[in-house]
Amino acid sequence: MTEYERSLSERVRDFVDTEVIPAEDVLDQGDTRRLTALRDQAREAGLWALPLPLEHGGGGLPLAEYFRLAEHEGRSDHGPAVLGSASLLNARMLASHAHAAHRDEWLSALVAGELSVSYAMTEPGVAGSDPQAMRTQAVPGDTGWRLSGRKWFTTGAAQADLVLVMARTGEGHSLLAVPAGGFEVVRELDVLGAGGQHEIVFSDVHVPDTHLIGTEGKGLALAGERLALGRTLRALRWVGQAQRAIEMLARRATGRRLGDGVLSDRQLVQRLLFEAELQVRGARLLTADAGDLVAAGERAAVPVSLAKVAAARALETAVDGAIQVYGAEGLTAATGLPRLLRTARAARILDGADELHIESAARRLFRSYQE
Amino acid sequence: MTEYERSLSERVRDFVDTEVIPAEDVLDQGDTRRLTALRDQAREAGLWALPLPLEHGGGGLPLAEYFRLAEHEGRSDHGPAVLGSASLLNARMLASHAHAAHRDEWLSALVAGELSVSYAMTEPGVAGSDPQAMRTQAVPGDTGWRLSGRKWFTTGAAQADLVLVMARTGEGHSLLAVPAGGFEVVRELDVLGAGGQHEIVFSDVHVPDTHLIGTEGKGLALAGERLALGRTLRALRWVGQAQRAIEMLARRATGRRLGDGVLSDRQLVQRLLFEAELQVRGARLLTADAGDLVAAGERAAVPVSLAKVAAARALETAVDGAIQVYGAEGLTAATGLPRLLRTARAARILDGADELHIESAARRLFRSYQE
Amino acid sequence: MTEYERSLSERVRDFVDTEVIPAEDVLDQGDTRRLTALRDQAREAGLWALPLPLEHGGGGLPLAEYFRLAEHEGRSDHGPAVLGSASLLNARMLASHAHAAHRDEWLSALVAGELSVSYAMTEPGVAGSDPQAMRTQAVPGDTGWRLSGRKWFTTGAAQADLVLVMARTGEGHSLLAVPAGGFEVVRELDVLGAGGQHEIVFSDVHVPDTHLIGTEGKGLALAGERLALGRTLRALRWVGQAQRAIEMLARRATGRRLGDGVLSDRQLVQRLLFEAELQVRGARLLTADAGDLVAAGERAAVPVSLAKVAAARALETAVDGAIQVYGAEGLTAATGLPRLLRTARAARILDGADELHIESAARRLFRSYQE
Amino acid sequence: MTEYERSLSERVRDFVDTEVIPAEDVLDQGDTRRLTALRDQAREAGLWALPLPLEHGGGGLPLAEYFRLAEHEGRSDHGPAVLGSASLLNARMLASHAHAAHRDEWLSALVAGELSVSYAMTEPGVAGSDPQAMRTQAVPGDTGWRLSGRKWFTTGAAQADLVLVMARTGEGHSLLAVPAGGFEVVRELDVLGAGGQHEIVFSDVHVPDTHLIGTEGKGLALAGERLALGRTLRALRWVGQAQRAIEMLARRATGRRLGDGVLSDRQLVQRLLFEAELQVRGARLLTADAGDLVAAGERAAVPVSLAKVAAARALETAVDGAIQVYGAEGLTAATGLPRLLRTARAARILDGADELHIESAARRLFRSYQE
Repeated sequence: MTEYERSLSERVRDFVDTEVIPAEDVLDQGDTRRLTALRDQAREAGLWALPLPLEHGGGGLPLAEYFRLAEHEGRSDHGPAVLGSASLLNARMLASHAHAAHRDEWLSALVAGELSVSYAMTEPGVAGSDPQAMRTQAVPGDTGWRLSGRKWFTTGAAQADLVLVMARTGEGHSLLAVPAGGFEVVRELDVLGAGGQHEIVFSDVHVPDTHLIGTEGKGLALAGERLALGRTLRALRWVGQAQRAIEMLARRATGRRLGDGVLSDRQLVQRLLFEAELQVRGARLLTADAGDLVAAGERAAVPVSLAKVAAARALETAVDGAIQVYGAEGLTAATGLPRLLRTARAARILDGADELHIESAARRLFRSYQE
Repeated sequence: MTEYERSLSERVRDFVDTEVIPAEDVLDQGDTRRLTALRDQAREAGLWALPLPLEHGGGGLPLAEYFRLAEHEGRSDHGPAVLGSASLLNARMLASHAHAAHRDEWLSALVAGELSVSYAMTEPGVAGSDPQAMRTQAVPGDTGWRLSGRKWFTTGAAQADLVLVMARTGEGHSLLAVPAGGFEVVRELDVLGAGGQHEIVFSDVHVPDTHLIGTEGKGLALAGERLALGRTLRALRWVGQAQRAIEMLARRATGRRLGDGVLSDRQLVQRLLFEAELQVRGARLLTADAGDLVAAGERAAVPVSLAKVAAARALETAVDGAIQVYGAEGLTAATGLPRLLRTARAARILDGADELHIESAARRLFRSYQE
Repeated sequence: MTEYERSLSERVRDFVDTEVIPAEDVLDQGDTRRLTALRDQAREAGLWALPLPLEHGGGGLPLAEYFRLAEHEGRSDHGPAVLGSASLLNARMLASHAHAAHRDEWLSALVAGELSVSYAMTEPGVAGSDPQAMRTQAVPGDTGWRLSGRKWFTTGAAQADLVLVMARTGEGHSLLAVPAGGFEVVRELDVLGAGGQHEIVFSDVHVPDTHLIGTEGKGLALAGERLALGRTLRALRWVGQAQRAIEMLARRATGRRLGDGVLSDRQLVQRLLFEAELQVRGARLLTADAGDLVAAGERAAVPVSLAKVAAARALETAVDGAIQVYGAEGLTAATGLPRLLRTARAARILDGADELHIESAARRLFRSYQE
Repeated sequence: MTEYERSLSERVRDFVDTEVIPAEDVLDQGDTRRLTALRDQAREAGLWALPLPLEHGGGGLPLAEYFRLAEHEGRSDHGPAVLGSASLLNARMLASHAHAAHRDEWLSALVAGELSVSYAMTEPGVAGSDPQAMRTQAVPGDTGWRLSGRKWFTTGAAQADLVLVMARTGEGHSLLAVPAGGFEVVRELDVLGAGGQHEIVFSDVHVPDTHLIGTEGKGLALAGERLALGRTLRALRWVGQAQRAIEMLARRATGRRLGDGVLSDRQLVQRLLFEAELQVRGARLLTADAGDLVAAGERAAVPVSLAKVAAARALETAVDGAIQVYGAEGLTAATGLPRLLRTARAARILDGADELHIESAARRLFRSYQE
């Protein structure tokens, strides 16, 4: 890391620790005013949209450099949204695949934080790992398609200006952009007590030709393309939150008196720290490795799967250990630990359940060992 | 088990599955009208207060027999409250140790569900395992004590008619009964998203002599007495919820199509079921063993610690497996799994964190092996 | 347990601890003189062949009663051979299925310890779980069969007077008894450093009609029949060895000074004991449960699989913990721990690898939950 | 890695795979003729003593570069001995601390493979982690010391020309060099079936002044100095053997037919590979990290402890998985897996039991988090 990178990392970390984390409660409740204020602060601090393209108003940080600070940004689940990098996946997809008629407009608004885009893939009643069973469908209409279907776990759909929807089109799948008004939010899901993910319905809505993202029938390839980067980013954030949990564990254990000593003198508490540290450092290195390949555009499916699983487990171990050290108090919202626990539990399912990664990575590994 | 016991068990199980579980959402929100209605149903079904003393209106079931159906009753965290057995610990304590001036009145009201009693032990800022550090104190006053202090994780304090409070008195600790009005509920704790536990404050409140439970200075012995039974009951309920999670896992896995087959054909799903079943059956047997000793009034500290830890782990494994099989949907409140997950996570801390049980049980075991 | 059963259990345990365990080194080396002497001692102590049929000279103990002392007998892998119960599986099979021309002669000699019988099932290069791939074959000959093939992991074949061989016969499989002379021992396998298992070859050997065990073509059913009992017996012995390892762990930990205290004061050592005790007690209860069903002749596949896996894991955990507590010395043969470790590691493969039990038990469980 | 480093790594790996591994059986039996022949081959291949000092005949490879190939060299436990780098720890210690009267002679002979040096630290009956309890003692004599005591787990003592012995001298500890003849080998230890480690006795042997290594009374500091490098080297070798086990697992799983498919199609087998790969890659990265610090002479206690524990666990997981995939055959010596299993089990104790690393690393980590 260069001196500049190190300093940027530290500034991101400080900003998240001092500005974002104390605001997590209100941000959880969807307080957009506070979010807007924090984004303004981030802009002033020169930390806005760092990995987004320069030409559309972003910081222009190359992926490989951004990865080095993504862990810090991700110490809070709200970090990326506050710092304007939560749109990275959508921005890259639109930059490469949106129709020229909309690309620049959408991108500029997206980077500026003025356009909110959601990604709608999963459907109720259909295994996420089985795209052939998808039911949302777009049939050809006048100058475009007629789209009908139902999606859920659509993050931020209630506030979205644009939803990118995967739908069956003929033999294949295509990705279509549907502006607000074209879908109905039928309910907000309660995901381990948190909101922000919705079930939405498309009822024979018209989608113009220029709202096709990429090539007709090649939607699944597009989805695959964003997976590697998406998983890497999430793994980095989980490592950041795991590190945060370790620091909480350590602070509590060294500060809490028990009999003549402190909690951190107890071997079973030492073991909680050791196991968490071991997993978090391992996950950090595995994630950095995967990130290098992703940034270089190389094949990274196995390293990304390993990093994803390692980071999710490390987060679970670290948070679990911190809660044990806090005792019953660790179960209360006031400590912030339940929020980390929620992310940790979801991590073993989001971005592909562990079981899927085990099978797909092992198949690739077996093949590579055969060669 | 006799035929009658088996039939009673089944009736309890059916009642919980068909009446209590569907009402969990509203009961979680503290809907007392629904609770009252369900209690009436339980009375009509002859399932009310089964283990409570006959002479005060309970079912008079001996502990050993009650243990055989406690697993079923505990399939829902609300089961014991609805079926009137949640007061068992307090009833036994009052029956043995309350002053004659109040005993019968309190007991009859308690068994009838008309007196709500809370137990206040834990204090903010003090390790639960370190009673010497307790700060709540009662000093002698006119015909009784003046009590001051702060307690938290006091279950149901907001609705309590009577709180049993552990306080320092002179060299020892004493347990004192304080009626509503004698304490202030300063906040409800948010425990993994659930309410029902409170922080309460006693400000120089007068406690008459007849409100001493047991002997002055011997309060910790009283607390220890209820621990073995309390832990056994909770372990039984955790086994019940773990069994419920396994059934959910199995139902989903056998009902969910994936490609040509169903989820239950997949070895990694089979493994989730196998590991859960292995742990739940082991925990059930260990808990039954501990229960036999507790019911017989024999020394049971080690078996209870082992049963407690085994049941908490089994619950965690079963719920975790069920969520993996449900996928992202398993994280949503609609499935009921997050509620079980909350109980599972708390189980590793409540009734003594695992770490405490490991140390105390191992010390006893080492001694017994030395003999 | 009756008083008599308890006393018999204790006598078995004492005999194994004081006579068999000290002789393990020489017995491992195949010292038949010592084995014979110990068997004579067992006969004198009234502990010979307890579960074998009375009418052929055994103790006539019903299975359910024998199971209660099998754990003690199995504290040493040599226990069953010294106490004359190692032949139980073969004796039951011959009693039910051997031809009348040989049955009584074989059984009497077997129970007396004068006939050594081996069981030859597994073949090199063929998955044990795939009997259709078996290559050993018997074709009809004059008054019997001509048998050719190769088997390995045949325990005690070098000393065997009779080998029971599974072979393909026409469409099915049949079990045939081949006396010494009818097979060649081509090598002794080195199984984690231990001998006693052999690879043997049958080269067009004549097998008379009366040497067919059971019905032609129904050999696999016979094999299945002995599996449940065989697995239960092994699980009981593993629990016995696990208990022995725990006692070693405790003795060392309480006897070894470290700084001001002893090893058993250390929480990480306490944890080793606790985890071992938890698993061993759970496995003991699960194995007893499975044993009750097996003794009653009821369906027991799932309970046996669970007990088998639990006992193997408990043994591994207990031995592993004992070695950690002994430190480097625990790796040396003088402590006896490496012998237990060898049994522990093999246990996860013998009687069906864990993976097979997971799949087969889960399939049955899923079916039973569907009903 | 430069092209040269990569090519050197590959040559080391090829040499170990094609020359050393096939000779493991005879090398295990202490066949010095074969060892000598293989060493000659290594010299001819330009792979002899790569990390040893140039001026004494070694390859002069800096530590940081040597670390990159140590994993390959360590794919066999015999690799370092055959390739002449097993003496690295002793060579560095003698180079820095041996008396000028002997230094060059000893070093040249050591690097040439003509001087065999053992290191004697551990004593029977004394916890390795408790140097204050050490009993071997050297008292001042004419022009030197008189040394008496007993050591065990002294690797290669039977063939040693020189033993470096830690002994109490006055208030502190000192390291003394004792040539063959000055100690008696009283027995060879049987360590999980392997020999090569001895118990040796010093009976009032004279040790001249010039045989003091380093400063009198500062022996423990010397021992500490070699620990970090020693542990890093071993961790690298364990990663090498773990990688070898994974390759065996993959070869067997993809080559073994089962029913219609191959073993590698089974999810439970895929899981064995995935978990092993995840741990091995993590351990490799953690070990490289620790190695960088050690090579740079920086403080590395925590990273080394984490790397040591991670590598030992990864080895255990990979070997365990390979054995499960091989089935019963995996327990036989012919596959080579039991040898890897032996190393794996010992790894959790050698170089400090896991429990010691957990405590010492956690203490340091807690301190660093407090700052």
